[in-house]
Amino acid sequence: MVQTHEKTATSPVNIAVIKYWGKRDTDLILPTNSSISVTLSKEHLQSKTTIRASPLFEKTRLWLNGIEEINLINNKRIQNCLRETKLLRKDYEEKLGKEIGMDNVLSLSTYNLHICSENNFPTAAGLASSASGFACLVYTLSQLYELPVSATELSKIARQGSGSACRSLFGGFVSWQMGSKRDGSDSQALQIASSDHWPELEALICVISDAKKGTSSTEGMQSTVKTSTLLQHRIDNVVPERMKLMTDSILRKDFSKFAELTMKDSNQFHACCLDTFPPIFYLNDTSRAIISVITEYNDKSGECKAAYTFDAGPNAVIYALKQNIPEIINLIFKFFPPSRENLTFFSDPFKLFSDRKIGNLPLPANFNENIIPIFPNDSVKQIIHTCVGNGPRVKNDESLLNSDGFPKNLKK
Amino acid sequence: MVQTHEKTATSPVNIAVIKYWGKRDTDLILPTNSSISVTLSKEHLQSKTTIRASPLFEKTRLWLNGIEEINLINNKRIQNCLRETKLLRKDYEEKLGKEIGMDNVLSLSTYNLHICSENNFPTAAGLASSASGFACLVYTLSQLYELPVSATELSKIARQGSGSACRSLFGGFVSWQMGSKRDGSDSQALQIASSDHWPELEALICVISDAKKGTSSTEGMQSTVKTSTLLQHRIDNVVPERMKLMTDSILRKDFSKFAELTMKDSNQFHACCLDTFPPIFYLNDTSRAIISVITEYNDKSGECKAAYTFDAGPNAVIYALKQNIPEIINLIFKFFPPSRENLTFFSDPFKLFSDRKIGNLPLPANFNENIIPIFPNDSVKQIIHTCVGNGPRVKNDESLLNSDGFPKNLKK
Repeated sequence: MVQTHEKTATSPVNIAVIKYWGKRDTDLILPTNSSISVTLSKEHLQSKTTIRASPLFEKTRLWLNGIEEINLINNKRIQNCLRETKLLRKDYEEKLGKEIGMDNVLSLSTYNLHICSENNFPTAAGLASSASGFACLVYTLSQLYELPVSATELSKIARQGSGSACRSLFGGFVSWQMGSKRDGSDSQALQIASSDHWPELEALICVISDAKKGTSSTEGMQSTVKTSTLLQHRIDNVVPERMKLMTDSILRKDFSKFAELTMKDSNQFHACCLDTFPPIFYLNDTSRAIISVITEYNDKSGECKAAYTFDAGPNAVIYALKQNIPEIINLIFKFFPPSRENLTFFSDPFKLFSDRKIGNLPLPANFNENIIPIFPNDSVKQIIHTCVGNGPRVKNDESLLNSDGFPKNLKK
Repeated sequence: MVQTHEKTATSPVNIAVIKYWGKRDTDLILPTNSSISVTLSKEHLQSKTTIRASPLFEKTRLWLNGIEEINLINNKRIQNCLRETKLLRKDYEEKLGKEIGMDNVLSLSTYNLHICSENNFPTAAGLASSASGFACLVYTLSQLYELPVSATELSKIARQGSGSACRSLFGGFVSWQMGSKRDGSDSQALQIASSDHWPELEALICVISDAKKGTSSTEGMQSTVKTSTLLQHRIDNVVPERMKLMTDSILRKDFSKFAELTMKDSNQFHACCLDTFPPIFYLNDTSRAIISVITEYNDKSGECKAAYTFDAGPNAVIYALKQNIPEIINLIFKFFPPSRENLTFFSDPFKLFSDRKIGNLPLPANFNENIIPIFPNDSVKQIIHTCVGNGPRVKNDESLLNSDGFPKNLKK
């Protein structure tokens, strides 16, 4: 009987506060600037991957959310991640063989793989799953192969799958150092602070309806690199200073500074998208209205109590301190009410308040209600209330594959 | 009996193709960069001003669109224009007095004025009337005072009323040289080419509905100057080159180059607004959709056949060559249809086609209809089809004032 070699692990989503936009090398995925992100709790948003290695598998196969991806498995980016981890495994096998004899070493590096990956959040939500997905692929492989390498080493491999995936190898607050070497060996993720460093920091993900299909970030960023006359200035003169200030604000837990930098950097990223030719738009009228609400809220609060940030889509992520979350959710409810039928509108593990109160709390003092109109029902489809979370973890008693090595949740 | 000293004149609107955004001196209205505009025909958009000078008037009074502006007359910017033209009149009177004797010179510079100004376009359209209005004020004063000065000299006075007003002193294609002197004496408008230089060039003004009140350009631009980390790069490194290229494209009547520069500069101006903190938004979802339609149209045409540009509001101005106007109007009709009740939707002095055909012409070959959804009725409220026009003109047989020196169209 053949022994089963299999590992299952989970990986988190990360949301950048200093944005990555532009590659200097599109094959190795080397960025034009460094970036910083916050890793979100896996309770709400995670990728889970089971990988089994077997000498009986005829080929390496991949299933995403229950559907086999016959073309994707040959995708260069996935192949890069498989090749790099296999090479490390092979080195490890050779090294181990010298110590304990080759006959005692399992030659996993020669086995084909069945890879099964699922996200616990709907693809329709428009939340980038490539970061958590590629981080999970590389992390699970490293565990399956028992690789004696650090998360930073793994981040360089995950980076070759999807740039921002390198930041999902860590929990807490993570910096992706752009590096300067041509082979990318210094373009890697480092942890600024762990997930328990700043427990008061929480996040609200506002999932926004949008009619228009956006430009993919892979295409979009290279179009910006080619045509924007502002991006290079951002790269050379703006981001380096912001990297220092953002790191400092995180280490000092200075929310006001953290918030201001987060909002400014989100704005500048979208400004560079607009300076692209033809221009790229990710923010829609609902996104703009959320910005207006947060701006008025901060203004009337006399300090930055909330920070919006937007990636390559209309969804807003709002960072705030725990004590201000109810007030902010209430504001979102007021201006972007859910329909009665929308029962999944609000996910609140913290049980901040009963549903009846939401949207009916008094507005903050002097808040100008007329800054924007009340939006049509479900303009914001969903609010996910979450917090800072850990990096990838092994799940010892779980598997997405059945005994034959095929997905338990297979979809036709 | 007291002789009536009165002049009536009209002045045009101008739409920038290289945008003015930011002042280096807010009193003298000196810009942070040079700009270029196209003057539009007065047939559709103009300011008309009658100014009467009389020793019997007890004070200087101002009526805008039939309503007396008691506070506005003391406004610093209006006072600047009145003072500067009066000073020139006084110099002229003294010079004339030396030649023909002071008794023979009318001391108009000491008389109070009744100023009555009207726009032939609704304020609700959100089209900037300050440029045509201040140009008209200064031009009418220069005619009343018989000032022996050039349009460029007058442009320096109009500039102190409203920056972009300096460009409305000329017809055709106009450059506003930012200048470098601290007193503003070299910050002036010059004509690149007259209105008959490029008769094929026409414009469509798409008036767009918007719920949100925008930031005024006066406030907005200084907020950008203070907070954007991209604006200075635009000023130093982008605009100087674009000024040369745009001037060249106008002189060579190279529509494709003119269009590309126009769109890129509009995009960059709005990018700098977005990089402002808090960010400024003038484009809404309808504006973005018009950009998408024009982008697809140019893309499938294999050349730039239309150029969008947006000022401090959601309205689009589309420049195109005469032969392509029907195709473009048809596209706008298709994606942004008017309601049946909207009888003023389309102003077409050129009688391009009967109303029945509009919106029903075939789309350009390979045009992807699915780039955007069809918008709700009247998202575009009005299309004004116009062309390049002349500068200010005296209207000898017209007056907005009655024999007593009060507005004929007085509103209570």
